[in-house]
Order: sequence, then structure tokens, then C-alpha cells
Amino acid sequence: MDSFIPTGRTQVRRLPQRAVYDKARIYSILDEGYICHVGFALGGQPYVIPTCYARVGDWLYIHGSAVSRMLGALERSAAVSVTVTLVDGLVLARSAFHHSINYRSVVVLGEARCVTDPAEKLEALRRLTNQVVPGRWEETRTPDELELNATSVVAVPLREVSAKMRSGPPVDDDRDLSLPVWAGVVPIRTLPGEPVPDGRVLPEVPVFDTGRLTRASKSGG
Amino acid sequence: MDSFIPTGRTQVRRLPQRAVYDKARIYSILDEGYICHVGFALGGQPYVIPTCYARVGDWLYIHGSAVSRMLGALERSAAVSVTVTLVDGLVLARSAFHHSINYRSVVVLGEARCVTDPAEKLEALRRLTNQVVPGRWEETRTPDELELNATSVVAVPLREVSAKMRSGPPVDDDRDLSLPVWAGVVPIRTLPGEPVPDGRVLPEVPVFDTGRLTRASKSGG
Repeated sequence: MDSFIPTGRTQVRRLPQRAVYDKARIYSILDEGYICHVGFALGGQPYVIPTCYARVGDWLYIHGSAVSRMLGALERSAAVSVTVTLVDGLVLARSAFHHSINYRSVVVLGEARCVTDPAEKLEALRRLTNQVVPGRWEETRTPDELELNATSVVAVPLREVSAKMRSGPPVDDDRDLSLPVWAGVVPIRTLPGEPVPDGRVLPEVPVFDTGRLTRASKSGG
Repeated sequence: MDSFIPTGRTQVRRLPQRAVYDKARIYSILDEGYICHVGFALGGQPYVIPTCYARVGDWLYIHGSAVSRMLGALERSAAVSVTVTLVDGLVLARSAFHHSINYRSVVVLGEARCVTDPAEKLEALRRLTNQVVPGRWEETRTPDELELNATSVVAVPLREVSAKMRSGPPVDDDRDLSLPVWAGVVPIRTLPGEPVPDGRVLPEVPVFDTGRLTRASKSGG
């Protein structure tokens, strides 16, 4: 399957020209990000909580403390929504109305599955670590039994998925083109700054190379 | 009132030392951001949608197309959750388990109120524009009747609110301090790039000054 089939729930109704169902494009958005916003309902009240995620094949993995409200809610396998948003630029028009944001966002709907298989759980944690910093898992100490037990992992299937994006310049009305106002796009870039060591790094260890965070420098534009 | 009173729903249970209820600190997070994730439920399914917001006093304003699914759901005044997240840094520890993110996030729970008063609606739209680019409303064309009618605005009260934040270096186990691994914080900065004019800017109009986006350059660290 190359594209997600829109359902009544993922069919983009407003500005359908911004809708994306193509799997490769959606997965590239998911692979560029590492923060998602998880939505779940408890007693009729929706909660939206930011957390890290990793995409592995057709699954999104989310982890957290075994005693957290969010993981508890997700493990009870209620319907969830997981949204990943990348902001690419501010779209400045000549009229207030035509201002916009250039962005790419993915909305995943589904039911979370509790990950109980130890091998799948360990692999999910590896991918969660490496989604933020590629290769980081391989250079740090692997979780021990106690740490694994303190951590819950759930998986959300990438089955009911849609993306929405906007790119390009503002779309102004002809009547506004004579206004003496700057119009265009201000790219927003998310970049790593100078690493700050914690003061206990052994002298022979090289400074962290932020070039490894290619994802962070890709997200401008 | 200087602080929000935690309710059963906003009391931070996991890592309570990261909880913030102080109004001034929470409002400074809300004033620094401009993208929120709105959670609402339709037929038992939660949806999480990114959108812009503005804080005006003890209210968050959200706008959108009058025909959008999100605005429709919010106007029916169901319970919503509005979450604002600022990512400040990647926390790299010597063990996979102690990796973290430095962040500041605010979760607002409540019921949305449809803004029907024309003066309040216009002021909300002004603040929505200026939350992204300070002073932008005053230099662009104000919405006309048709544009106002095409736009819905809702307000969510800042009444049931909590924030959570993490800052500072990783907290490693003593047993891991001898590992030859770099540990510390990689700040994440969200910065404006070079403005890209839309090709129809009048010759006498100066280039947009990204120094006006002080918010974007504040969010590193």
C-alpha cells in the first residue's frame, strides 16, 4: 500500500488541497520529528500530552513511566490520537486574513497496544532513543531489569493516518498588492546550539557532534 | 490569584517536582509560543490538531475556518484540552534510561466559549496575528465583513491549568560516571531564517526585520 485510505475520520475536509495520504511523504514527516502530542480521553475529558515517539515500520511507539496517567490511559487501549507537527515558516501576507503558517503535520488515530514482549519492548526503546539522536543507544548503557520494569511502552498502528501541509508564499488578494507591506515567508529553523557538558565528562571523551542531529537542521525551509 | 489551584485533573502526579502552577511562569510560557495542540473528542474518538493561539488576559483564543471540524467541535462547547509545548534542549545521559528532553509545556482543560461579540472577535484576531509577529496587525489590511464571517473564534478560560518543565543537566547514576560517553544538554533553538519575499513586494518596502520575532530567539537554552 502506497497511500493511506482516508476514512470518515481522517478525510481532510477543510482545504483538501493541503491533504497528504501518501505513505512515503507521511513517514518522512514522522521520521523528521521526535515530539508528538498524544490525545486521550478520561471520563469524557480530552487530555493532550507532549512526549517522544519512534516510528518503526507501520507502528508508532510511545514510552513513559509505568505509573503515568498517560501510559495508564493508553494501556487501557482506548482510542487515541497522536499528532506530529513540524513548523517550517511564518507566512506574512498583506492582509491579516491571509496570514498563515507553513507546516507539515500528521494525525494518527487508533487504539494503543501494550508492548509486553521483551524483545519488542527493548527494540522500541532503542528506536525511541535513536529517533532523537541517531546511534545514541549503541554508545550508552542499555537499560537494566529495574529500568525496563519502570518503563511502559505502547504501540499505535499507522493505519488511520492523514497529513496536512502548507508550503510556499502567501496568497494575497489582488486588491492588496498595492499596499506598502512586506509579504513573503520567514523560514523557521530548529537548530542545535552549543552542547553544554554536565561537568563530569571524562577528559578523553570528544564533545558531542551536533552534526548527528541532521533531523533538526532539516526542519527549516 | 498568583497560582492555579491544582484539581484532580491538573494535579501533576508523575515527577511532581516538575510541576508549575504559578500564574506568571505559566503565562510567560504561553506568551512565548504561538502553536498549540487542541484536543477534542467526537464520538468517543479524541482528535489532536495543531493551530495558532493568542493569550489575552485569562483567556486563550483560537480561530479557524467557520466550517472546520475543529471549530465546529469547539463551538459545541465540549470539554477540550489545549497544550503548548516549548522544547529547550536534548538531555543526553550516559545511560539510555536517563535521557530526557528539557521542555516547558502548559496543559489547559476547559470548555470553549464561542466568541460572538464583534468587538471581542476583532480584538481576538488582532492578538492572534500579533502573537506570531508583534505589531503585524497594525501594518496589514484589517479583515472585511466577508473575511470576518468566514472565521470563527473560540475562547478557552485559563482556569484549570498546569505546566510541567524540565531544565538542567542529565541525572546519571553514580555507577555510570566512569563510562566514556559525552553527557550534557544540547540546546534546541528555534530561529527565523532569511525572509523570502513573495516577488511582489513594492520596491520602497524594507525587508522584514526578523528581530521583531524576539519570541523565536528566546526559546533556546
